Order: sequence, then C-alpha cells, then structure tokens
Amino acid sequence: MAQILITGGTGFIGKHLIRRLIKTGHNVTALIRPTSEVKDTPSITYRVYEGTYASVEAVFQKQSFDTVIHLASLAQYDCSPEQIAPMIETNITLGTLLLQAMKQYGCSHFINTSTYWQHYRGEAYQPICLYAATKKAFEDIIDFYTLDGTIRAISLTLYDVYGYEDPRNKLLNLLIKNRHVGKSFDLSPGEQKLQMTFIDDVVDAYIQAMNFLPNTPKNHTIYGVYGQGTYTLKDIVAMLETLTGAPFSIQWGQKAYYPFQIMDPSFGKKLPHWEAKVSLKEGLSIILEKEAAS
Amino acid sequence: MAQILITGGTGFIGKHLIRRLIKTGHNVTALIRPTSEVKDTPSITYRVYEGTYASVEAVFQKQSFDTVIHLASLAQYDCSPEQIAPMIETNITLGTLLLQAMKQYGCSHFINTSTYWQHYRGEAYQPICLYAATKKAFEDIIDFYTLDGTIRAISLTLYDVYGYEDPRNKLLNLLIKNRHVGKSFDLSPGEQKLQMTFIDDVVDAYIQAMNFLPNTPKNHTIYGVYGQGTYTLKDIVAMLETLTGAPFSIQWGQKAYYPFQIMDPSFGKKLPHWEAKVSLKEGLSIILEKEAAS
Repeated sequence: MAQILITGGTGFIGKHLIRRLIKTGHNVTALIRPTSEVKDTPSITYRVYEGTYASVEAVFQKQSFDTVIHLASLAQYDCSPEQIAPMIETNITLGTLLLQAMKQYGCSHFINTSTYWQHYRGEAYQPICLYAATKKAFEDIIDFYTLDGTIRAISLTLYDVYGYEDPRNKLLNLLIKNRHVGKSFDLSPGEQKLQMTFIDDVVDAYIQAMNFLPNTPKNHTIYGVYGQGTYTLKDIVAMLETLTGAPFSIQWGQKAYYPFQIMDPSFGKKLPHWEAKVSLKEGLSIILEKEAAS
Repeated sequence: MAQILITGGTGFIGKHLIRRLIKTGHNVTALIRPTSEVKDTPSITYRVYEGTYASVEAVFQKQSFDTVIHLASLAQYDCSPEQIAPMIETNITLGTLLLQAMKQYGCSHFINTSTYWQHYRGEAYQPICLYAATKKAFEDIIDFYTLDGTIRAISLTLYDVYGYEDPRNKLLNLLIKNRHVGKSFDLSPGEQKLQMTFIDDVVDAYIQAMNFLPNTPKNHTIYGVYGQGTYTLKDIVAMLETLTGAPFSIQWGQKAYYPFQIMDPSFGKKLPHWEAKVSLKEGLSIILEKEAAS
C-alpha cells in the first residue's frame, strides 16, 4: 500500500485513477483548489492548495508520500491574455512547488502528465498552443529537480483520452448526450487523425508508470500512452453512429481546423510493459452500455 | 531610428544597453517594476509593469514598437521555496505577456536573454538551478509565439558578463572595491573555468542581434555571446592582482563549489557577424581606469 498525493483528482482522469488506487489498497490524498467541489469520501483525504508554497508544504508536513501523481492542468487550445498568468500558475508553478516540497520532505517518485500537442508535425518539440508550451516548460523544470537523482520522474504523454463518466464538453460526449434530440453540430472537415485512448487503459498506464519508475533509464523519462492505430474524426463519428443506430446531424467543414491542427499525431517511446487493451469500438460500446444503465 | 521596448533596463546590462541605444538615435521605452528606482532621464520613457496583462497592454496601446529587448530576470543560483513563484513570474510570465501583446499589437522582433547555466556538462539542456530551468522554459514558450512567423526571436545565451558601473555583488566588483582595505575572502577552490564577456561587447551583441534578426534561419534562434578562451577563477583573480598591484587575501577552498558547478562551459553557435573585441586583461584595465577616474 503506497501513500499517494494526487493533483487534478476532481477531473476526468483523476476521478477514475483515484477510484482504482483506492480499490487496489492505496492511500490517496487529493490536493484540491479551494473552489473544487468534492463529494466527501471517507477513503480520500482532501488537502487544499491555496496557491502558496506554505499550503503545499503543510500537506507534506502532515504526512509522508511515496509518489506524487500530477494531473492538474489548465488544458485548452485557446488562451485569452487574461488566462496566461493562471495557466502558467497551474501548469508550471504548482508542479514546481510540489517538486520543491518533495525534495524538502524526501518524497522521490513523481508522475507528470504531458500532451501530444507538444509535437506539431512530429517535431521533437513544437507546441501548437500555449497550453502545450507550458507542459514542455514544466518538463524542463522537472529536469532540474531530478538532476541529482533524489527525485525520479516519468512524464506521460497523453493523446485523446475518452471514456465513461466524463464531464468534459468533448465532442463524443456531446454527441452521445444529444443522440435522441436531433441536435445539429458544426464541425471541422474531420480529416484529422486521432489516437483515442480509453480511460481504463490510461488509468492502467499511471499505475504501471508508478511501478516502472525505479527502472527508467533516466531520472526523468517521457513515455507515450497510446494504443494501436489512429482514426480520423469522421471515422470515429461514423463508428459511434453505427453503434447507436441513430444518425447524427453534422455539418462537416462548417468550422475551420485549429490554426495548428495536428492532422497526424506522432508517437514517442511507449510506456514499457503497458498496452492499451480496449479498442475504439469496445470503448465506445462500454460508454453506451454505462450510459444506458445509468 | 527604432522604437524599442526594454525590460530589465535598470539592471547592469540594461543600463549600458539603453545608453548605447539612445546614443545611436533609438527611441527607448523601459518597462519597469513599481519598485524600481529610476533617475528621471528625459531621453527614456518609463512605463510600469504591475504584474498584469492590462499593464503590459497599456504600453503597446500608447505606442508602437519595432523591437522588444527582454533582459529582466530573477537570476540567482539558489532559490528559496518562497522565491519560486516570483521567479516563475519574472522569468516566464512577464515574457509571455510581452509576446502576447506583441502578437496582438503587431510588434514582430523579440530579443531574449538566456544563460549558459542551462548546459550542465555541455548537455544540449541540463539546467544547474531553477533559474536556468525557467530560462529554458521561457525559450519553449517563445517557440509557440514564433510558430506562425509573425514574431521572430533571438535568444542570446550569456556567459559571465563583467564591466564598469556594475552594481551587482559579484566577486570581481567586491575585490576591486575592497582592494585597499585588506578584506579577506573565503572562496571555492577556484578551478572552474569562466567565459568572461565584457559589457561593451555584450551591448554590441544585443545591437547586432536586432540587426541580424530578419536573417536568422529559424523563427526563434538561440545564439551564444562569448569571446575566445576561458580562464579559471584563480587565473582571473591573479590577473586582477597583477593589474592592481595589491595582493588579495583569499582563502581558496574554504567554500564548496555549487552542487552542480559548471567547471568548463560549453558553447553553442555564436551570434553571427559579432566578435568579442575586449580581452579579459583589457576589460579589467578599463574597469580599474574608470574606477580610478570616478
């Protein structure tokens, strides 16, 4: 049983991951914002991050941790000028404060979350938006904190994570939610290829990253979390259409692609000893089953 | 005559650079902190950065700029936990807000300041301290803002900049200041090699970077600002001793090296069409002459 501190625990991946961690006997503390809404769960300890080092330090003073899993992020393609400072605070400063506290209180395992949006046109690094740039910026800060080897880190590069109990306003969720009401959607031409990774597989990846961390070749190693093959957005919607049996009303091409749309994702080294198990068809079917049962 | 916005204008390099820019007919606006002390100079326009995008935007609304020269930084090897947030704010957020305003108001030339401390043991990237990591992090953010080519940037990698009228508590300044009072100094063993670059040469480099920016191979290009050869700290002090004729009282080895001391700096591509003109001996002599004349 490990003592785990997790950020982003109230988000889509965080909730699923916490559930699994608790189920497998781990002790979970979630670092949350004062504004986060949480259902009080006796199995989770909540601590509040007030935006200061003192509030992070207080968490480490109360308790020892084996691993910190860092999922919290302000993740969006567009960033208004007023959002720049909060985005840097969430995506860079919070993680840096965590690493500092880990160093100070002797916690040595860190799992970080990165994004394939850092890799426009397959470049080793070319971000498509400020969010992706801040993710790379934070990887660079991890490189400092892991330099002397007292902290070891894995950054997991995520692709398009999808699944059940997903509160995000992502297209798949909106299509499923509105499948009986004939709502019309204006979309891009839809030829961009996506690597869809099912939530249960992503949760597996975080668990595997925790286990594999002592064996990584570098103090900070970046691994991809992706399954086999990509699908165009059009293919994905068509598959969902077949599974639901209800045709969607979609105006393809009514919206433009992102200015730096990734049309064909690139793939770095995959997390060792981990494989995505759930195919896209299976994943979509599971979502629809869970949706029907709820 | 170019319209230039400069940050860090009240620092050592900034003051020298502004003087040269004004002397060569440029129009200089200095973005300063509310706490910065400035002597009112009719030839410089001062604007205040309040830590917000609104305060940066106000500067660009009042005036058009051809080039932004970004020198402001919180530059130090050690960083207490409480300094992490201010360091990220100064070294990452401020620059990002500048780039955002440049994008919004059509300013297309950006000169940034990086450090050789980003290159422990000659690595393409391995920072020796958080300051160096934040410098790299900001380079990553520049990569996003220069992606579409409307903004072009050069990051200048600086080494050990020294010179006259230097208010910093650096060793050379302290030795010169105390050369008649027999003050004793506890230092590291002193075998670390340093690339000393004279302030006038560094000012030349910023001017040359402005001129060269339209011809760089990439939208964001990183160039080194360094002269020929390195000297150990011991050699440098010995040279200064010879020039002043006064022996210093130094206990070599009484202090430890930095945990990740760079013993032998590495050198990336040098800024094209620029050469350091001032040798270390000449530079030290100029400092002593100016010191004697003042």
